[in-house]
Amino acid sequence: MSERYVIAIDAMGGDRAPNMVIGGLRRVCTEFPNVDFLVFGDESRLTELVDKHPSLKTRCTVQHAPDAVNNEDKVAYALRNRRQSSMALAINAVKEGEAAAIVSAGSTGALMAMAKLAFRTLPGIKRPAIPSVFPTRKQGKTLMLDLGANVECDAEDLVQFAVMGEVYARQVLGVDKPSIGILNVGSEDMKGHNEVREAAQILQNSVLPIHFYGFVEGNDIANGTVDVVVTDGFTGNIALKAIEGTANFLVVSLRRAMTTSLLTKIGALLARPALKKFWRELDPRRYNGAMFLGLNGICVKSHGGTDAVGFANAVRVAMQLIESGVNERIREDLDRIMVQRTDPQQTADA
Amino acid sequence: MSERYVIAIDAMGGDRAPNMVIGGLRRVCTEFPNVDFLVFGDESRLTELVDKHPSLKTRCTVQHAPDAVNNEDKVAYALRNRRQSSMALAINAVKEGEAAAIVSAGSTGALMAMAKLAFRTLPGIKRPAIPSVFPTRKQGKTLMLDLGANVECDAEDLVQFAVMGEVYARQVLGVDKPSIGILNVGSEDMKGHNEVREAAQILQNSVLPIHFYGFVEGNDIANGTVDVVVTDGFTGNIALKAIEGTANFLVVSLRRAMTTSLLTKIGALLARPALKKFWRELDPRRYNGAMFLGLNGICVKSHGGTDAVGFANAVRVAMQLIESGVNERIREDLDRIMVQRTDPQQTADA
Repeated sequence: MSERYVIAIDAMGGDRAPNMVIGGLRRVCTEFPNVDFLVFGDESRLTELVDKHPSLKTRCTVQHAPDAVNNEDKVAYALRNRRQSSMALAINAVKEGEAAAIVSAGSTGALMAMAKLAFRTLPGIKRPAIPSVFPTRKQGKTLMLDLGANVECDAEDLVQFAVMGEVYARQVLGVDKPSIGILNVGSEDMKGHNEVREAAQILQNSVLPIHFYGFVEGNDIANGTVDVVVTDGFTGNIALKAIEGTANFLVVSLRRAMTTSLLTKIGALLARPALKKFWRELDPRRYNGAMFLGLNGICVKSHGGTDAVGFANAVRVAMQLIESGVNERIREDLDRIMVQRTDPQQTADA
Repeated sequence: MSERYVIAIDAMGGDRAPNMVIGGLRRVCTEFPNVDFLVFGDESRLTELVDKHPSLKTRCTVQHAPDAVNNEDKVAYALRNRRQSSMALAINAVKEGEAAAIVSAGSTGALMAMAKLAFRTLPGIKRPAIPSVFPTRKQGKTLMLDLGANVECDAEDLVQFAVMGEVYARQVLGVDKPSIGILNVGSEDMKGHNEVREAAQILQNSVLPIHFYGFVEGNDIANGTVDVVVTDGFTGNIALKAIEGTANFLVVSLRRAMTTSLLTKIGALLARPALKKFWRELDPRRYNGAMFLGLNGICVKSHGGTDAVGFANAVRVAMQLIESGVNERIREDLDRIMVQRTDPQQTADA
């Protein structure tokens, strides 16, 4: 029998919470028979929702949270005044060892701040980052980080993201020797602002056992040129949403094009299985759920606007992270990498 | 009879130059019977290419340029040492009044630096910006700037881009009252770094007669939320290429999906006219050709990797800019706007 895990759920975060949260849990509960859920939020509403599904009822423990984080809350306000929120209590359950991970679709800023305060960062890591996986032309995957945790990043932050991204690609995504690129406006050494140039120089000259490719450009994300794309949270967030917006626009345009005449409708019908597969591969819900990488605890952020299908995927991400023992592996790797970085001699001797 | 114009062409810039340049001119020469071309580059090669097409020969004057800008040239090097390049001589033709615009597919950095030195910026404009038009879900268009001329921008630069973008959207794209958004990682006032927050504040509190929408996110580009999206050249360039890469990836995936079985192939055949229209609308060559906005002269940059179809479009953009008298209009509007900005009293009195 496989080990049993508990996942803490912030049931009040997200545009369609708590319904989409409970709907998401219902979708995954048969998939992961070894997981129980600690569900935080409005007790009466949650109990009513959970009770409707006998299969879910036996796996959920509802815990009342008298408050919830609001999307309009400033981060400092949430930290000070939302200590009894479903988000804060769910994070606390992980801190207290009652759960192995927390999943929330609530405000990114508040979630990051609360999780950082409760879990602290991994040794040697200054700031956590949000990674996400993108499908690529090569039918592989590219990991990009940071997607919005840090609006301003210096060279040292970018170097840490590169190291964490490398470990994540290797340990969680199973990439053999991940190649790392820094997102820039051109591939020449002299391009870009100081931070990216300095970070590239550090990675180029370092004795770290990582494969640094150099600079990559915006189109390299979808091209799958490297396994890990490193960028600051401002650029990363805008690139992520520009990509999502474009994919969405194209799908809508294509649907429109395929219904212009009877002939195209018949064509679309014949091509339906292929088109369905195509839509499915692009479905952003499939990519929902991003870890706060670099924290000493597993915190998965779901898109706020997602539905039950998307939330279920965020729970899947949490399970994958728990089962891969991601943080222990990152800690080991970071230890080794940091030692090598501060003491090149040791590498030479090893 | 319509007025005659001369366009100066840098025939040696771009990956497939000079063939694709001459091919591009051949495509547009019947479309614009009132345009002649001053073509700069390797005289013997160009003469040979031009002589093959009698219709083009009568419209082109080949001028020998003993040198060419190299993509690997640093900007400072190109400025100092490439004064006899096809790019420099073509720019000079505009400066000397021999041509109304210059089109080049050469290095962006060198082209911008040379054009800025030769043309200077419009009164009140500190730095020129590169705008481009994106198709949107609303079947309209969004103008985004800057797409790479300025890697680092302060709040004042962003405000100037907003003003120039507004005038361009109104005068060249024919948008009635263009709405302006600043690209950010969220729509709330407190989001983003200092530069975008400060720029938003200036635009919000200004007496400028422009419609400032507020912050927009990456997905708003394809959604067509505003008419003009303002951003720094680093973020803009990465967003542009991320969008291009995504569109490319989706088209390739869709093509792959549509050829998986006999049935889907028949479906694709039936839907062919609609699919063709769909591909055509997404063809990046249709959007090739970007003005350096804010210079006291018309300089159009073509994508370096484009072909004859794309280069022809860059020439079309130049024609459109010449015929709309874009710089005169921008100058008038800027004058008015700058006066209002420095002297709110005048607006109140007006």
